[in-house]
Amino acid sequence: MDFDHAGIATDNAEALAEQYCELFETSVVHEEKLDDLRVRFLDIDGGYFELLEPTEQGTVQRYLDHNGPGIHHLALTTADIKSALERARDMGIDLIDTTPRPGAWGHEVAFLHPKSTGGVLIEFVQH
Amino acid sequence: MDFDHAGIATDNAEALAEQYCELFETSVVHEEKLDDLRVRFLDIDGGYFELLEPTEQGTVQRYLDHNGPGIHHLALTTADIKSALERARDMGIDLIDTTPRPGAWGHEVAFLHPKSTGGVLIEFVQH
Repeated sequence: MDFDHAGIATDNAEALAEQYCELFETSVVHEEKLDDLRVRFLDIDGGYFELLEPTEQGTVQRYLDHNGPGIHHLALTTADIKSALERARDMGIDLIDTTPRPGAWGHEVAFLHPKSTGGVLIEFVQH
Repeated sequence: MDFDHAGIATDNAEALAEQYCELFETSVVHEEKLDDLRVRFLDIDGGYFELLEPTEQGTVQRYLDHNGPGIHHLALTTADIKSALERARDMGIDLIDTTPRPGAWGHEVAFLHPKSTGGVLIEFVQH
């Protein structure tokens, strides 16, 4: 699988994007409203950093309330997300999404439960 | 800058590496003892996942004690780590390492303080 992006939870994506763009010498290449979030993607050669700012109550707002801002998840690209989920399930990994659902950029995405994967929230993405 | 790796803190890198290699269809491409850690790098197209297992007391063991296992840091490659640190300092970002020091693979590395960068522990790497 390929690295797709690291998701970062923040309560001020505009300020963080401005700082990261200067610090990493990059730019915001995509921005959209997705469910209870506004997401911004920064281009990092080899993948993206996705800044996640809640616009209403939801899982990322709860994450911020409990943990404060920081790294939220790691996303990997797969050519066949259904097979990847099947393999995860066969390995005994708990799935948050048992079937793919629409994510950012219109991609199909599914999350695995971090309790099954070393405390890391993993997202599979099929472009 | 380029994505280099995501660092993941774990108290059982051998088991986590085995699971991730099967789940992500990849392999461990590098392993070494580094200060108070044993580190394993998994090849993820576009970068690496670095599994960090403490061998003695230190910052990662303290991280595990306080937060449990999970994503520890994000690392970006720069062609000129001293300039990158200078730029960070000029932006008012607190540096954990004011000058580069030897990291994994023999690369020069330096960490920025997460309180200055949206709760994300950032590592600069110069190959």
